[in-house]
Amino acid sequence: MARTTLSGFPEWTPAGRIVEQQVLDHVRRTFELHGFAGIETRAVEPLEELMRKGETSKEVYVLRRLQEEGTSAESELGLHFDLTIPFARYVLDNAHHLAFPFKRYQIQKAWRGERPQAGRFREFTQADIDVVGQDTLPFVFEVEVAIVMAEALAGIPGVEVMMGVNNRKLSQGFYEAVGLTDVDGTLRIVDKLAKIGPAAVTELLEEELGATAAQASAALRLAGIRGTTASEVVAQVRELCATSEQLEEGLDELARLLDAASAAIPGRIQADLSIARGLDYYTGTVYEATIRGQESYGSVCAGGRYDSLVVDGRRTFPGVGLSLGISRLMSFVLGKGLASATRPVPTAVLVAVTDDAQRAESEEVARQLRSRGIATEVSPTASKFGRQIRYADRRSIPYVWFPESGEVKDIRSGEQVAAEPGGWTPPEADLRPRVVMGSEANE
Amino acid sequence: MARTTLSGFPEWTPAGRIVEQQVLDHVRRTFELHGFAGIETRAVEPLEELMRKGETSKEVYVLRRLQEEGTSAESELGLHFDLTIPFARYVLDNAHHLAFPFKRYQIQKAWRGERPQAGRFREFTQADIDVVGQDTLPFVFEVEVAIVMAEALAGIPGVEVMMGVNNRKLSQGFYEAVGLTDVDGTLRIVDKLAKIGPAAVTELLEEELGATAAQASAALRLAGIRGTTASEVVAQVRELCATSEQLEEGLDELARLLDAASAAIPGRIQADLSIARGLDYYTGTVYEATIRGQESYGSVCAGGRYDSLVVDGRRTFPGVGLSLGISRLMSFVLGKGLASATRPVPTAVLVAVTDDAQRAESEEVARQLRSRGIATEVSPTASKFGRQIRYADRRSIPYVWFPESGEVKDIRSGEQVAAEPGGWTPPEADLRPRVVMGSEANE
Repeated sequence: MARTTLSGFPEWTPAGRIVEQQVLDHVRRTFELHGFAGIETRAVEPLEELMRKGETSKEVYVLRRLQEEGTSAESELGLHFDLTIPFARYVLDNAHHLAFPFKRYQIQKAWRGERPQAGRFREFTQADIDVVGQDTLPFVFEVEVAIVMAEALAGIPGVEVMMGVNNRKLSQGFYEAVGLTDVDGTLRIVDKLAKIGPAAVTELLEEELGATAAQASAALRLAGIRGTTASEVVAQVRELCATSEQLEEGLDELARLLDAASAAIPGRIQADLSIARGLDYYTGTVYEATIRGQESYGSVCAGGRYDSLVVDGRRTFPGVGLSLGISRLMSFVLGKGLASATRPVPTAVLVAVTDDAQRAESEEVARQLRSRGIATEVSPTASKFGRQIRYADRRSIPYVWFPESGEVKDIRSGEQVAAEPGGWTPPEADLRPRVVMGSEANE
Repeated sequence: MARTTLSGFPEWTPAGRIVEQQVLDHVRRTFELHGFAGIETRAVEPLEELMRKGETSKEVYVLRRLQEEGTSAESELGLHFDLTIPFARYVLDNAHHLAFPFKRYQIQKAWRGERPQAGRFREFTQADIDVVGQDTLPFVFEVEVAIVMAEALAGIPGVEVMMGVNNRKLSQGFYEAVGLTDVDGTLRIVDKLAKIGPAAVTELLEEELGATAAQASAALRLAGIRGTTASEVVAQVRELCATSEQLEEGLDELARLLDAASAAIPGRIQADLSIARGLDYYTGTVYEATIRGQESYGSVCAGGRYDSLVVDGRRTFPGVGLSLGISRLMSFVLGKGLASATRPVPTAVLVAVTDDAQRAESEEVARQLRSRGIATEVSPTASKFGRQIRYADRRSIPYVWFPESGEVKDIRSGEQVAAEPGGWTPPEADLRPRVVMGSEANE
């Protein structure tokens, strides 16, 4: 049978997986340090739940049991295409168990049947954080999720990720103040700015929405505003001489976010007033992060404030959340060799076996090393020591232990020293595989 | 819309997920300490790959893109139903990158479209270890995987899991020695012993395979053998007065495994010569673990040695592996309240906010605590301290920090002490949510 990889379904080598696993560990630890609880939801949702957002319905993978031909009494199931819709459903299912505001993180795979391209997969891992309140949710959580996610992004090796923020109230209030009354239409067109450029945006605003040249120009000037401090952003918005209650509220929120961000994690979060986010359920802060110097690779993390995504007729759970595209980022980092693992195995030590009758002694050395957190294997064969050393070398294990002489050898330098299994520890740099920049490592 | 949980697709509460996550962390750590490298494979495989084992084809979920009606040029994809078939495919795909023997662990979800029942799910998490060699694989790895998995199982809270082992060569050699020449047929029937009992097994052996009463009785006597030491098992097999080269080889291997197991992890691994394992690709040691005192719940971990599962015409990669049913075990442990988490959030400390103008000071306290590994939140509102304490209590956060007075309060005991954000640490028992036996915990 011909073996071909499936386009859009990435798999990493063991060394690549070590890099990804360390990223996932860092991300999880960051989320937990800020009080986010981990949950997992099932991979499938009823199709009607997934299709509440009509525009993505084409991307859904629908499930069918092989032996089940034709229609069935069960409702159709599809694989989830993000972690937001399942989370919204989980909150409604479990509302009586949960304490609000409920802060959760969720690191899982998602699937989309769309055409694969660079950084766009059919199967991908997402790491999401969201906070949902019952009935109300203080603005301060819009600040918190940005800072938590920026800290998570700061731990991705080999790239610098910059988070851009905007505020829907600011954009919407501005559009209304300058007479662009089709606010959703304007957002949808401005969202294309990075892809199609300012001339095409102007044309669309004029042709599709009947905007005047002055209105289109005002929308573009707003979208051109950038800044890392509240004062510079506020000054630029003031220059546009538009005002409305909603604009002021959005500008004030954006300024508060920038103030808090520059104190907590300087240089990682900036205002970018071109960020619109296509999804129509956002109502406050919107976020979009890109790799610095690689903006054309597109967004690697995005989200926003939503007021009415999680509702069941009786109750409303406003929320704010961000979704980090782990596979998108790892594909970039690993594909370009920007980071790698110092070795492809967890093992630090191979304990040699002198002869098969003495295997138990080698096992005892290994047991003692493992009890102190040192990943250890025992040689599968009692071949000549030279062959056992080559075995370790082939598997990229840095140390070989000789129980009979009570010595341990660094097989890279050749240095061999006396050692006690109850006391010896490898240097910190060799204890576990480490993630290093570039592809200096042993694969 | 009516909200109903989907039968067969389990989801845990945040507190339940903490128990599961700590189990997964323990399992992963155990695997890594023994030198197993983590990999992940895609969730889907081409249908023809999944159907190589005909008998399970009925359980496969097939994928279809919603907008793709009728047939397509792409070959059909199905969700994997275990992690063994994908691993075999991964080894063949990556053989040129990998160093053999390749030791990997893999913790992922799998899916089966079968009828859900207690402990049998349509979506479930498995934790697998396998070792594959190129051309050959020393027997010693059949010992290693049993011990590694028994150590992993020893960390599951609230239950004691016992691993049973047998050896295909021993059973097959014995059947042939007593004249039961349809070895696969005999294995298949003996495999049903726990379900249908000895009388029904005798009947099937006689009717389907034409066995004599003496042959059926011999097969049942073999299947009745149990023991934790090599000597007691060998003695019982000898009493049956059958011998063959294959039987001797299998018995010798089983004895070596028991010797090593009783040294490494006493009381956790026993010979159980009724273990047959239905899958026909096993060729040496076979494993099956059950919860002590709950054997009727069925196997929670199983596997075996396989010689020709991973082949591509030119090359053979013999292997041995075990698959641990995390969801099956967690469903038992959580469903019966045998273990729970001391709190449903990672957070140890809530920093109070005196008034909104001083929020930055509270954030600074939180930053210092987090930098020392203490999960900390900041109160979202500057309400009265009594309300902020109730907020912490509702979210099960044990400590509240008051920045103005420089004091921290244990809200369970009411004790309040002076503390420095750069030095204070909660007692070890409160630092992170812990897993405790029974449901004594705060949910």
